[in-house]
Amino acid sequence: MEYGEKVSLYVTGLTNSRDDVQRGKYLESLRELVKELFSLRNHFAKVQMLLFPYLERLGLTAVPRVLWTKQDQVMHTVKMLYTALMKGDMQEIRKEGLKVSNALIDMVFRENKILFPTASVLLKEGDWAAIASEMDSVGYFKYRPVKKVWKPLVPPRYPYEITEAIPDRDIESLPKEVKTLLTKAETPDTYSPTQNDRLEFPTGFLSKEEINEIMRSVPIDISFIDKDDRLIYYSPGDRVFVRAKTALGRKVDHCHPPRSVGIVKRIIEEFRKGRRNKAVFWLRINGRLIYITYIPGRREDGEYLGTVEVVQDITDLKKIEGEKGFWSRTD
Amino acid sequence: MEYGEKVSLYVTGLTNSRDDVQRGKYLESLRELVKELFSLRNHFAKVQMLLFPYLERLGLTAVPRVLWTKQDQVMHTVKMLYTALMKGDMQEIRKEGLKVSNALIDMVFRENKILFPTASVLLKEGDWAAIASEMDSVGYFKYRPVKKVWKPLVPPRYPYEITEAIPDRDIESLPKEVKTLLTKAETPDTYSPTQNDRLEFPTGFLSKEEINEIMRSVPIDISFIDKDDRLIYYSPGDRVFVRAKTALGRKVDHCHPPRSVGIVKRIIEEFRKGRRNKAVFWLRINGRLIYITYIPGRREDGEYLGTVEVVQDITDLKKIEGEKGFWSRTD
Repeated sequence: MEYGEKVSLYVTGLTNSRDDVQRGKYLESLRELVKELFSLRNHFAKVQMLLFPYLERLGLTAVPRVLWTKQDQVMHTVKMLYTALMKGDMQEIRKEGLKVSNALIDMVFRENKILFPTASVLLKEGDWAAIASEMDSVGYFKYRPVKKVWKPLVPPRYPYEITEAIPDRDIESLPKEVKTLLTKAETPDTYSPTQNDRLEFPTGFLSKEEINEIMRSVPIDISFIDKDDRLIYYSPGDRVFVRAKTALGRKVDHCHPPRSVGIVKRIIEEFRKGRRNKAVFWLRINGRLIYITYIPGRREDGEYLGTVEVVQDITDLKKIEGEKGFWSRTD
Repeated sequence: MEYGEKVSLYVTGLTNSRDDVQRGKYLESLRELVKELFSLRNHFAKVQMLLFPYLERLGLTAVPRVLWTKQDQVMHTVKMLYTALMKGDMQEIRKEGLKVSNALIDMVFRENKILFPTASVLLKEGDWAAIASEMDSVGYFKYRPVKKVWKPLVPPRYPYEITEAIPDRDIESLPKEVKTLLTKAETPDTYSPTQNDRLEFPTGFLSKEEINEIMRSVPIDISFIDKDDRLIYYSPGDRVFVRAKTALGRKVDHCHPPRSVGIVKRIIEEFRKGRRNKAVFWLRINGRLIYITYIPGRREDGEYLGTVEVVQDITDLKKIEGEKGFWSRTD
């Protein structure tokens, strides 16, 4: 039985039963179910992150847009039902319960009759290979598959690599709701992130200029000591502890006052030997609270690559209270 | 008159005078002077950052090491004198005052008779050009020079570019204290930070692998939206908000739920037009306090390069109290 039907069953039972014990059981089942339903957020996030980009790339932007709004509505109704259950207000529980049930039944229909059939027509083997490889980090749709069950015969294809429009024979096989949309579809997206002499990284593309701007913009000061214990990089811009180009290539021992060289060398040795994964300090300087973190960089095989120093003025962060969401307009 | 002599004068006056008004004046002068002396820290930092690396590179490591310890001692005596002045303990003021005076006189001697003469023999025009160009960001030794007074005829030479040992004719011209040291000098440092296919940045050198490790290690999650409003990069590793490679090249509008697209687009437009330099939000998610910052990247001429998104879990930072310096061993 699907979630939507389950919610409906419990709510109907709750409404019709006149036996207090029986009603208590329905209520308990409903509470358990709502907890499970909160984790739908993860399922939706995966759909949004892994499937939607392919449809958008092909010009089918309306399908993801509508579905995302519906997904938000599902999560909103679940939250309302949770609140009603907390309050124990039977009338509200019934009202919100039916809303959840309807929203879920609608979502299952949209996924099974529109989203997944569309994806199965439009996504090719390389696309599924890409999705499968990302699931290792993003998480699986429902169950973690047995490892190596499916070995794609083609390399992963990411949405940004798709350049052709939807072929006519694929259009024929699409669900009719989607076919209708296609007549007013946007043109396929042909943007390439590899332009402008960008370098390729495991998680994206950046030019040297963009890297420099990111390093300047982030609210932390970064320095890097390489595997030979040399300072080879520091982030540009205003810094808590000033750095200068004259210090590039300098031995890390020489970057610190003689009295603290011992502790610095000890931390780095522990990093190098894999005995330690972090060292933190915090100091008060001119009334500001400065937080300093050292983190070792390592290859996947554990080989030491160097040490990252992060310096952050956390004085103002400590004062943050409450929430200020995207909907606030006070900043 | 030098600082050391001034301190000595005030302390002697304080000791010998029997007139309360006169003593009050000496005390006041001493207090003013101590405030000035605290800023010696900046002068020392510049010497440590700009001059020392050249001497180290040439194998003269003992001179900077000894001097740095002495500089620390100067700052320590100043701090002790400040404490004595706060307490108003005349005997301590005299005792600490004389220590400050002696430490300063010793430092002036070491700078004027050893450090600066040595630097003036060993550093060549390109080295001074490099130091001058760094002073724009690090700050000047004492006064900001009139712009463009000195135009070096050679390009800046940074310590890591020096490969030759000290020539014999330079050794002859060194102060005798340094000449003695040279017999037991280390061999010159020939390490080059440009090795390993490293890319050159305005503030250092990094390989792609090192950049990836830095991005993974820093305690913030970074994403980058390029000038065409596309997500082109996200930092690897555990993240508050999951990202996947399938989202690379995606329009920023499509990366957010339809209900918050409006505010995201408005922020980016304000960044692009130069009307805004930051947007911050904070949310509670599963009991954690998540702090989100958007910062525009711009070229020096103001041209918009893209937007950096920084997400940080600041829950634990908010609990930081007191200090935990390099000398603590409790972590």
